[in-house]
Amino acid sequence: MRIIVDGFGGDHAPGEVLLGCAQAMEELGVNIALAGDKAKLEASARELGITAQFSKMEVLPSTQVLSMEDEPTSVIKEKSGSSMAVGLRALADGKGDAFASAGNSGALVVGATTIVKRIKGVKRVTFAPVLPKAGGFFMLTDGGANVDCRPEMLLQFGLMGSVYMEKVMGIRNPRVGLCNVGSESHKGDELRRHAHALLSQCPDIRFVGNIEGRDLPYDGCDVAVTDGFTGNMMLKLYEGVALALMDQIKGVLTSGLKNKLAAAMVYNDMKALKKHMDYNEYGGAPIMGAQKPVFKIHGSAKASTVKNALRLTRDFTQSGILEDIAGAVGKKENG
Amino acid sequence: MRIIVDGFGGDHAPGEVLLGCAQAMEELGVNIALAGDKAKLEASARELGITAQFSKMEVLPSTQVLSMEDEPTSVIKEKSGSSMAVGLRALADGKGDAFASAGNSGALVVGATTIVKRIKGVKRVTFAPVLPKAGGFFMLTDGGANVDCRPEMLLQFGLMGSVYMEKVMGIRNPRVGLCNVGSESHKGDELRRHAHALLSQCPDIRFVGNIEGRDLPYDGCDVAVTDGFTGNMMLKLYEGVALALMDQIKGVLTSGLKNKLAAAMVYNDMKALKKHMDYNEYGGAPIMGAQKPVFKIHGSAKASTVKNALRLTRDFTQSGILEDIAGAVGKKENG
Repeated sequence: MRIIVDGFGGDHAPGEVLLGCAQAMEELGVNIALAGDKAKLEASARELGITAQFSKMEVLPSTQVLSMEDEPTSVIKEKSGSSMAVGLRALADGKGDAFASAGNSGALVVGATTIVKRIKGVKRVTFAPVLPKAGGFFMLTDGGANVDCRPEMLLQFGLMGSVYMEKVMGIRNPRVGLCNVGSESHKGDELRRHAHALLSQCPDIRFVGNIEGRDLPYDGCDVAVTDGFTGNMMLKLYEGVALALMDQIKGVLTSGLKNKLAAAMVYNDMKALKKHMDYNEYGGAPIMGAQKPVFKIHGSAKASTVKNALRLTRDFTQSGILEDIAGAVGKKENG
Repeated sequence: MRIIVDGFGGDHAPGEVLLGCAQAMEELGVNIALAGDKAKLEASARELGITAQFSKMEVLPSTQVLSMEDEPTSVIKEKSGSSMAVGLRALADGKGDAFASAGNSGALVVGATTIVKRIKGVKRVTFAPVLPKAGGFFMLTDGGANVDCRPEMLLQFGLMGSVYMEKVMGIRNPRVGLCNVGSESHKGDELRRHAHALLSQCPDIRFVGNIEGRDLPYDGCDVAVTDGFTGNMMLKLYEGVALALMDQIKGVLTSGLKNKLAAAMVYNDMKALKKHMDYNEYGGAPIMGAQKPVFKIHGSAKASTVKNALRLTRDFTQSGILEDIAGAVGKKENG
């Protein structure tokens, strides 16, 4: 398997991306093609002491870098020479099996849609992060790719998320919930009521009805379906509350000698908990609905997170879920 | 000041409500009028050993109880004889200065709108909980009263929230933020873009632009404006993530002798932190925009939380902000 990686996407590119790719090649049995400025990549590899590993990577030369500040559509306009655009075109042209980038999420969604192109019948690609919950994970779809949604899109997000959680994350018969302000089917706005009806009638998913915000961290469902506006607010709030609370606990555990002593005693267990709550640890989020696997690596990813993300990209690619999605969506279209 | 209290609203009514009212009378210098079945209230007061305090409360007799499962509109229909409806009518008729209930939020919003009635020019009343953040609080408006919103409503939520945080919570020149998926003014859906323009042009508030989910727990603003659908998802997610994380930390701190020992050492500090993060502690949320103060006590409130809620109800009533709201909204209407 060859994964094409955006060498100049993310806060710590290209160094940490290169390191993560080198680790992935060694540990995950994947080949890497790096999109980026060859001279700069070479210089970075030399500096990091990984020229041997770098020599095994193919380089797909690019001349521009698409930044976090660039408009999403720039990937097909003024930044069509960027590492992200070059990587996406290489994927579309069959020069690799998947594409992963820690760069601008919006541009990646636009690129997945317009360069890699959607699976026939898929109305919108979805950015679908996997978040921690008590004793496991759940997928939030859509996490921000589509601020305006129609009910059929929410149905498709549920279908795609269900397939991903089953085939890639290994959750049998995943429970799909519709994010809503109450449990009864008539709750919420028009979008929610229509989506509830569509999800209820879909034989291909295990719909468990509406799910409220307070149940998500408590194993309320495996796939939480919502529009991209609400999803993005929730995603970032989730991250913010967890981090703020961990900060405050850190404040408690480092104030005064007695507390510091106590902190030392629970250090390992607290560290494990922090790791579980930190969604950066999981590496990123699949962008589903395109004809080939596209994966968003977390923007602040360092080498080990890049490697984790590439493991998920590999699993996503091997799972064959794109055929399942095409089948499920096609059935809906014809049925 | 006389606060009318719904004697049969909330998970622990009437007992904990009665106890909280008795404490409020003694500690806060307020008079209490209780809406409810007189015989049942008397029996409960006797059982709790507070007949002396109860004898100082007026009782507004009612024959029904409006439950959490009842439809919001039932407060003016089949449950118009409920303690909530009786209390709201008493407020509208001038038999008290404010009304507080731990009952069905949706019904309370409908009652505030149709029985107490809106301030002239106010498009929708808002349910506006105050949530903890690093080193303080922020208001989330709307928290679930209005799942469908227009841009002018969001502007009014910002105006009302700003006045409340300044006059009731004592925050000078509060910062108003618009919940959105990015910081730039063009971000989000049509509702957000229009609301951004209106908030930017409003001279009566200190608008700090868009605010993302991850900044809310980190002192991003004092008033976070959003539609009631997103707001309700965020409110409950906020609560859920904080509680789930505290549960997990409790799990760490009670597993094994060493950790238990450490827990004992940080017990008081962790308890203070838990108290700060627990939004039940604040007692509840104002419902703003009605002609008189209506306050939602947290549904699971016990006596001390009821008392805290009645303190906020008192402060809300004394603040005179309803005149400020009428003035600000009226100026908008005419300007």
